[in-house]
Amino acid sequence: MADYTLYHCKNSRSQRVLWTLEELGLDYTLHQIPFPPRLRYKDYLDINPLGTVPAFFIGDTLMTESSAIAHYLCEKHSPTTLAPTHQSSEYPAFLDWLYRSDTTYTFPIAIALRYTYMEPEGRRLQQAKDDYIQWFFSRLKHVNSRLESHNYLVGDSFTIADICVSLGLSLGEQALGLGETFKPQTKDWLSRIKDRPAYERLVEIDKNAPDFLSDINIVNS
Amino acid sequence: MADYTLYHCKNSRSQRVLWTLEELGLDYTLHQIPFPPRLRYKDYLDINPLGTVPAFFIGDTLMTESSAIAHYLCEKHSPTTLAPTHQSSEYPAFLDWLYRSDTTYTFPIAIALRYTYMEPEGRRLQQAKDDYIQWFFSRLKHVNSRLESHNYLVGDSFTIADICVSLGLSLGEQALGLGETFKPQTKDWLSRIKDRPAYERLVEIDKNAPDFLSDINIVNS
Repeated sequence: MADYTLYHCKNSRSQRVLWTLEELGLDYTLHQIPFPPRLRYKDYLDINPLGTVPAFFIGDTLMTESSAIAHYLCEKHSPTTLAPTHQSSEYPAFLDWLYRSDTTYTFPIAIALRYTYMEPEGRRLQQAKDDYIQWFFSRLKHVNSRLESHNYLVGDSFTIADICVSLGLSLGEQALGLGETFKPQTKDWLSRIKDRPAYERLVEIDKNAPDFLSDINIVNS
Repeated sequence: MADYTLYHCKNSRSQRVLWTLEELGLDYTLHQIPFPPRLRYKDYLDINPLGTVPAFFIGDTLMTESSAIAHYLCEKHSPTTLAPTHQSSEYPAFLDWLYRSDTTYTFPIAIALRYTYMEPEGRRLQQAKDDYIQWFFSRLKHVNSRLESHNYLVGDSFTIADICVSLGLSLGEQALGLGETFKPQTKDWLSRIKDRPAYERLVEIDKNAPDFLSDINIVNS
C-alpha cells in the first residue's frame, strides 16, 4: 500500500499536490473525482468533513490545504531541490511565496469564478468579479517584477513556490481568459514550468478525468 | 541593533508577528504606523513595495506574509513550544491550520470589511458581504469542532496556529460584531489565548497606537 492517498479534481487546488508528488517521484494512491465532490462524489464528506479539495492522507492522517501539503512533502523528503534549506538565505522568500500562493493568487480567482459561473444568474456580481480580478492583477505585479530578472520565484531553480503560485494564474487563464494580459516574462515562466516531465505526467494522468472547467464552458457556450 | 524590524498596524495582520515575537521573547525594533500605510505613512512603498502590512525585516531581508513570518520565527528559534517538531504526529495538522489561517479565516472577513466600510457607499455590496460572512461561518465549524474536545488547535498546548487563526475571528468580532454568534467553546478559546502575558504586552504596546477600527466606528457613527 502506498504511503500517501490523494483525492484529486482536475484543475483544482489538488493539482499542487499531484504535481509535487510527481516531482518527488513518490508512491501514492490516486482517486480522481468530479468537482465539487461534496455534491458529485457520494460520501466525500465522510472522507473529508470540510468538503474541500484536496483530501490527502498520510496513513490515517488527513491534510486538506494544498500548499501546506506540498510544504509537508518537501520537509518529509528533504533534502530536495524543490525547497531551499531552512538555513538558506532564500528560505524567508520561499515561505512568503508559499503562504501567498492561495490567499493572494487563488482566492481572488475563486471569487471571480463564483460570481461569473457558480452562482445562479440573479446572484452574479459583476462588480465583485471586476474588483477581485483587478486586485489579482495588482498583486501579480510582484510576480511580474520577480520574473523580469529571474527564471523562478525563489533562487535560481524550480521549487514548490512555482507550483503553488502558478495554480491561480493557470485557473485565471483557463476559466476567465486572463492569460492574454499576462506579461511576457510571466507567460514564459508558465510555459517553462509546464515543460517539466512531472507536469507532463500530470497532464497525462488528468487526460480523461472529469473537468469542472468543461462544465463552465458548457454553461457559457 | 535588534535582529528584527516590524512595521505594525494595530488590529491588522501584523498582530500575528508582534504576538509571536513577544511569545518568543525576542529583541526587535517596532514601527507603529497608521492603516492603510500606503495612504497614511509617507514612503511606505519604499519600505514594502507591496504596500501590505506587515513589513518584517530579518537584517535586510523583507518578509510580508504574517503567518509565514510566525512560521519562520518558530523555525529559526526552534525548539519552541509554539510549534511541534517536524517529526511530531501533530505537524501535518499544524501546517494545515497555519496555511488555512489567512485564506480561510481572514480573507472572507477582509471582503466583508471592504464592502461594508472601505468602499464608497455606491460601491458597497451587501450580498458579497453576506456571502463571505456565511462562508466564514461554514469554515468556522472546523474550529468549533476541534475546540469541543481540545483547548488549542494543535496538540495540547498553545502554538502559533492559535495566534494565526484567531486573528480573523478577532477582526470579525471587533469590526463586524460577529462575536456574539461564536460558539461557547470558541469564545472560551479566544479568552484563554488572550489571557497570556505575551498578548497582554501586545495590548499594552498598542494602547496608544492609531487604530483603523476607530476610523470605521467614526464612519459608522
